[in-house]
Amino acid sequence: MNHVSPTTGLDHLFRPRSIVILGASNDPNRISGRPLRYLLEGGFKGALYPVNPNRETVQGVKAYASLADVPEIPDVALLAVPAALTEQAVIECVEKGVRATLIFSAGYAESGEDGLAVQDRITAIAKAGGLRLLGPNCLGMFNSQIGYFGTFTQSLDREMPSPGPVGIVSQSGAYGSHIAFLARKRGMGVSYWITTGNEADVDVAECLYWMAGQSDIKVIMAYVEGVRDGPLFRAALALARKNRKPVVMMKVGRSEVGAKAASSHTASLAGSDAVYDALFRQYGVHRAATTEEQLDVAYACTRGIFPKGNKLGVVTLSGGAGVVISDSAERYGLDVAPMPKAAQKELKALLPFATVDNPVDTTAQALNDMSLLSKNMRVILEQGGYDALIGFFSTVPTTRTLAEPLRNAITDGCAAFPDRLVVMEMIADEETVRSYEESGFLVFEDADRAVLAVSA
Amino acid sequence: MNHVSPTTGLDHLFRPRSIVILGASNDPNRISGRPLRYLLEGGFKGALYPVNPNRETVQGVKAYASLADVPEIPDVALLAVPAALTEQAVIECVEKGVRATLIFSAGYAESGEDGLAVQDRITAIAKAGGLRLLGPNCLGMFNSQIGYFGTFTQSLDREMPSPGPVGIVSQSGAYGSHIAFLARKRGMGVSYWITTGNEADVDVAECLYWMAGQSDIKVIMAYVEGVRDGPLFRAALALARKNRKPVVMMKVGRSEVGAKAASSHTASLAGSDAVYDALFRQYGVHRAATTEEQLDVAYACTRGIFPKGNKLGVVTLSGGAGVVISDSAERYGLDVAPMPKAAQKELKALLPFATVDNPVDTTAQALNDMSLLSKNMRVILEQGGYDALIGFFSTVPTTRTLAEPLRNAITDGCAAFPDRLVVMEMIADEETVRSYEESGFLVFEDADRAVLAVSA
Repeated sequence: MNHVSPTTGLDHLFRPRSIVILGASNDPNRISGRPLRYLLEGGFKGALYPVNPNRETVQGVKAYASLADVPEIPDVALLAVPAALTEQAVIECVEKGVRATLIFSAGYAESGEDGLAVQDRITAIAKAGGLRLLGPNCLGMFNSQIGYFGTFTQSLDREMPSPGPVGIVSQSGAYGSHIAFLARKRGMGVSYWITTGNEADVDVAECLYWMAGQSDIKVIMAYVEGVRDGPLFRAALALARKNRKPVVMMKVGRSEVGAKAASSHTASLAGSDAVYDALFRQYGVHRAATTEEQLDVAYACTRGIFPKGNKLGVVTLSGGAGVVISDSAERYGLDVAPMPKAAQKELKALLPFATVDNPVDTTAQALNDMSLLSKNMRVILEQGGYDALIGFFSTVPTTRTLAEPLRNAITDGCAAFPDRLVVMEMIADEETVRSYEESGFLVFEDADRAVLAVSA
Repeated sequence: MNHVSPTTGLDHLFRPRSIVILGASNDPNRISGRPLRYLLEGGFKGALYPVNPNRETVQGVKAYASLADVPEIPDVALLAVPAALTEQAVIECVEKGVRATLIFSAGYAESGEDGLAVQDRITAIAKAGGLRLLGPNCLGMFNSQIGYFGTFTQSLDREMPSPGPVGIVSQSGAYGSHIAFLARKRGMGVSYWITTGNEADVDVAECLYWMAGQSDIKVIMAYVEGVRDGPLFRAALALARKNRKPVVMMKVGRSEVGAKAASSHTASLAGSDAVYDALFRQYGVHRAATTEEQLDVAYACTRGIFPKGNKLGVVTLSGGAGVVISDSAERYGLDVAPMPKAAQKELKALLPFATVDNPVDTTAQALNDMSLLSKNMRVILEQGGYDALIGFFSTVPTTRTLAEPLRNAITDGCAAFPDRLVVMEMIADEETVRSYEESGFLVFEDADRAVLAVSA
């Protein structure tokens, strides 16, 4: 593919000031009605032009009989028309001078040779007319910063996304919806979410490149089945690294069945897995093996603290948890190095029953006098030389009278060390978890996942 | 250790009809007050005798000045007295003829030679007097079937456990509390929960043996740092297998640091890891690497369906999810075998856009006509020859109007195949998840975890 610059015209597509919806339905629950509904619910600030030849208004918004009637040249056209009408719609977009379009419908390259021929024709028309094209066979995208929801994904029904430090690029629409939903559920705001589908024009590499340049993004999650533009993909990863935006990648199609499924899904070639692994190593991309890992690592990245070394301190109320965490640390290459002897002495003086080398087991005793916990953490962070600290507090924060004092105690203990990654392994309700996060801690329910995220 | 039978006297300890609490405090929040509070809240049906020389009543229950004054011989004595008074208390238990005791206090074998000497003395007194002993340095146990909560674990503050198909044996009290809490959070009832601590007498092997004999238990979760009685441990695993009670084991201390931490925790020797692996293989024990895996596998076992083969069918609304699941299946040794050609033709006739070999991708189309989904699942289960089926429905059940029709459609599709393990990978609120579980489906939020659980 030839681009003047890697991301020419993408701002029109990803940050439009005006949107036309071709084939907009008045029924807010139909696929062709949902984008307008979401745009209205999301409070899109720019101009909205539904096109529907049969109605004066669509969902309460003034409608136009055709694209030609729309009083300005819209930045982006959402094509909610059936596949059979798509080619004609693209021609009209070019005639109008629209800069970008987003095609939801399926039945193109992914469905066989006939579909591929139509797709190629549409792509050629768009390219000749200077029209950037997202899709076809995609779920669309959103930019929650400006209330732009160019998508019909049913996953927005429950709750509209809020802006935040996460950007998502996915070749699969449904998988992309799935991780965006889970990210929101974990309290992570998602500013940009782009699904690329068949990638007739705009591909995953270009989207990554664009996202790596967005200053409001702290971490990028990507789902990739295969890459069409290798050099641009490489350039995008390099730019992300330069701009210190960690990329957490789900590169699927590792297995034979998976690769086959990918080809019938978005018509992409999975490519040699080893090549991807090497590329990801080179650019410091974290390749997640599972969705949960992808979310955990992205979550850990939102904190913006990246441990320089692999020394892990552990403070726990439970000897058992200390053993579990130590096992996990070895699995992920972290060093649970012992505390210096002098520091051990100091800790033993505080709590004679404690185990003090590392993991430091304060026993439940520390709950009776939380200042002991603060002091322990201070000594561990000050003298242990650890890059990260995991605290295991199990179900303690579920007891309402303990949640707040515990948070204060650990906040106090860590106050002097803002550069260390401090992770709480604990169980609590959502509100309590958010309060710990606001105090600067990451919160995990599972110790192994906490250790993995730190190691990443 | 010598036992007349592997579990002599354990029924008194684990299913007492009368309980004495030595050192019971009137303050329901103190460690020495919590066991009585939990017994009252849990509605223990037998007799309760708090012993406290300074009060007429303790937490509203008639108190006794000494154990000698208690009007019957209690089955079990909970020792909530300080460590310094424990030896004397054990002597009194023997004099009274109590059959079993449970010692919470710490400062014995795990704390060094002096502590070990005291522990040995106490153990000898108990053994000579026919008194079975759980602990010391343990969190106690519960049997929720009879409201017997002989524990001070703070994790019961939020919600008391309900009976159910799960039994838990843990050498670590805090870790045991942690998994019991998480099990409840996932809707799994826990009937028996036993923490063994220093295992001066009753050890993890004996508890496993006892639990393998309980007819109301479907799955046993265990946390083990080291085993004292190898032959009995082996016999317990053999009995569990014979009685078809899967054991999901967290055997920790795999790493060097972990092994060291285990020794200062419950004074146990981790032993050679390879020996354990071989033993677990021999008896079909699932060794979990992480807490989450332990819970996932136990959860899958509660269904009571154990796939005979490794053929996995996948039905999904998202091609991307199909790829992810296929990758996971390969990782865990499951065979995502294609559908027979005739069946593929049948599916294609139902939904021309669908991908039909396996994973079967019905696309979101199936949501518009849910009967298509039922038919698809029926064909897959009937003709695919799969031992288990995973359905990926992402966030669909979060849309209230879809949750119920979807459940009905898949219930209908699976109705004729009660012997297949059917797992839903979906996101939904707790109530919806429970309704799917009641219809006989397992529900996971993460595809990889779902696949792992099926493979186990």
